[in-house]
Amino acid sequence: MISEKMKELVAGSSIIRAMFEEGKILTEKFGEKNVYDFSLGNPNVTPPDEIISIINDILVKEHPNLVHGYMNNSGFVSTRKALATSMNQKFHVELNADNFVMTVGAAGGLNVVLKSILNPDDEVIVIAPFFSEYKHYVSNFGAKLVVTPAKTPDFLPDLEALANAITEKTKAIIINTPNNPTGVIYNEEVLQNLTQLLSAKQQELNTTIYLISDEPYREIVYDNTAVPCMLNFYDNTFIVYSYSKSLSLAGERIGYICVNSTMDGFSEMMQALNVANRVLGFVNAPSLFQKVIEKCVDIEVDVSLYKLNRDTLYQHLTSLGFECTYPEGAFYLFPKALIDDDKAFCAAAKQFNLLLVPGSAFGYPGYFRISYCVSHDTVVNSFDAFTKLAQLYS
Amino acid sequence: MISEKMKELVAGSSIIRAMFEEGKILTEKFGEKNVYDFSLGNPNVTPPDEIISIINDILVKEHPNLVHGYMNNSGFVSTRKALATSMNQKFHVELNADNFVMTVGAAGGLNVVLKSILNPDDEVIVIAPFFSEYKHYVSNFGAKLVVTPAKTPDFLPDLEALANAITEKTKAIIINTPNNPTGVIYNEEVLQNLTQLLSAKQQELNTTIYLISDEPYREIVYDNTAVPCMLNFYDNTFIVYSYSKSLSLAGERIGYICVNSTMDGFSEMMQALNVANRVLGFVNAPSLFQKVIEKCVDIEVDVSLYKLNRDTLYQHLTSLGFECTYPEGAFYLFPKALIDDDKAFCAAAKQFNLLLVPGSAFGYPGYFRISYCVSHDTVVNSFDAFTKLAQLYS
Repeated sequence: MISEKMKELVAGSSIIRAMFEEGKILTEKFGEKNVYDFSLGNPNVTPPDEIISIINDILVKEHPNLVHGYMNNSGFVSTRKALATSMNQKFHVELNADNFVMTVGAAGGLNVVLKSILNPDDEVIVIAPFFSEYKHYVSNFGAKLVVTPAKTPDFLPDLEALANAITEKTKAIIINTPNNPTGVIYNEEVLQNLTQLLSAKQQELNTTIYLISDEPYREIVYDNTAVPCMLNFYDNTFIVYSYSKSLSLAGERIGYICVNSTMDGFSEMMQALNVANRVLGFVNAPSLFQKVIEKCVDIEVDVSLYKLNRDTLYQHLTSLGFECTYPEGAFYLFPKALIDDDKAFCAAAKQFNLLLVPGSAFGYPGYFRISYCVSHDTVVNSFDAFTKLAQLYS
Repeated sequence: MISEKMKELVAGSSIIRAMFEEGKILTEKFGEKNVYDFSLGNPNVTPPDEIISIINDILVKEHPNLVHGYMNNSGFVSTRKALATSMNQKFHVELNADNFVMTVGAAGGLNVVLKSILNPDDEVIVIAPFFSEYKHYVSNFGAKLVVTPAKTPDFLPDLEALANAITEKTKAIIINTPNNPTGVIYNEEVLQNLTQLLSAKQQELNTTIYLISDEPYREIVYDNTAVPCMLNFYDNTFIVYSYSKSLSLAGERIGYICVNSTMDGFSEMMQALNVANRVLGFVNAPSLFQKVIEKCVDIEVDVSLYKLNRDTLYQHLTSLGFECTYPEGAFYLFPKALIDDDKAFCAAAKQFNLLLVPGSAFGYPGYFRISYCVSHDTVVNSFDAFTKLAQLYS
């Protein structure tokens, strides 16, 4: 009875569900402490303490019909103003409220952007390994996903492969830095080269190629690594942001889209995003949390636990002989599997109660993802299991 | 640069925006008290007082990573259990957590249902006058909206017209009771006749025809009028609910989909809804407000202000000679315009600072909508303006 498209999606999700159920069975059998679940990207660092008092303050001081009622589909002007002020200071850009649309997280924001720009049969380029939901988001609008591989071992864009992938049908490229699943950050030079290529291709093909920068991990960085602001590199950029990770508010579905005033057809585009937010059924980003964000623009979670986990795990894995790019951000490691078949490798890991995600799930076989947004105890207690896994293939 | 589909949508939304801007200009010119804006459906009754203490309680007592983190894409089991218990008592049905998917309001819920069932070129029937967003939601999935008119003057379904509209391509019919824009409620007999027709057509055509019951106004009823529960009439029913009106939480985007266990292919359908919620970019309904709903399942706003507005306005308008069905629910009146051209009529109303929406916006020319979720002062102060409007055509 369900639609043809959904049949495939349900079948695909059944595999993930099966993995999840297997994990639950392992946990029941061996106890939570003895199962090392590195499969999920659910932030475990607590949201900043201020959130509670900020919410209390809003509920006491503001009129409930304004806090909980409809507003412009793009979101509260006061929230968007606060965001503009914060980003102007942080990134030396010139934004105001009109450059923003508040969204139901980055997932909502990406769908709003894609709805606004895609015609059926358009092409959207992603760089593998990539967050697999992009595939579904692009498919929602009848467009085609074009996958180009990143370079190894640094997982930076392969500009030659990218240049070859760009055609007259290319409407957008999605980048994700800090990256899920590799943790890699594109520095200024990388972005300069990438956007120079896009500009040249726009001119050569006489088309518009949008750069969609999916940035939920922008604030999850270590060792003071800078994440350059895409708006400073390329006019036709959509920044899609989420507070899921930077404030550990993943369930609240709050984020935004930010667009340069210099984008071609800026005003019409902002109106399209506003309308797309409405007709896709989001209507507006959740209202109370828009007001929370307004007071939190410069607050972030404490990433020291993630950093500790990264350092400890990276050291142990490389000491065991795993090849792994040193991640500068996000909360993932993406090591090379010890055999070519990453699915078989992750299946084998289960005998040591290690739950890992095969690189195939990110369009990049031969590798696997470790999500280290877990307690430090889980990390330390998993060492033996990783050692045994490595010995299996030595 | 924006997509072809969006170009039309942006053009359409510009008309609404122009109306809104005109209203703002009138307000600036004559003062808020002297402009009678009956154009918007934003609840003006305050949310129940308990909401604040419930939120405080959740924030203090529950772990922040659980309150604000990801959960199953269908929503918290505890919330869905509370809903099931409440509906079982209220409607004598047999539901549990598995019968529910929590959604980003009813707009989100409708899109999740339509994504789950529609193939391109399927047909979805609506009964005019209807909430115009249905058109866009159906179009999101490449399906075709088929409009059948309601009977006048009672605005109940015209079963003959409906029977003629149903074809092999009919995948669903959307009903909305209490109705926007008429305020009409379908009683048991109406629903029995309607669902008997659907059952007969299912058998005749050997197809599945879903009944999608959009119920954001279910609790906005007067004079103890009962809104029968659709689950008791037809197995292939989706109830799509929102707390936008019943708790005045329109901006928070919280609602649910509820499905009978007796629906054909129930388990696969619930999985499809779960996956659709994810891939459309909603991911899950906002988490804090899921927890709020869990504690609020049997709380509703005080509808006495809406009732007072309805009674006062209905009496005044009918005394002026307006033909209008007596609305038993929602917060709208849908009188017949005094000339055939409803757009010209609403344009003329503006000279008296009356902001009304033409019936054409609901697929039903010749009428106009009054949204009376405004202060009682606005209602009383508008009497003169309505009198002058009537005199214009007498």
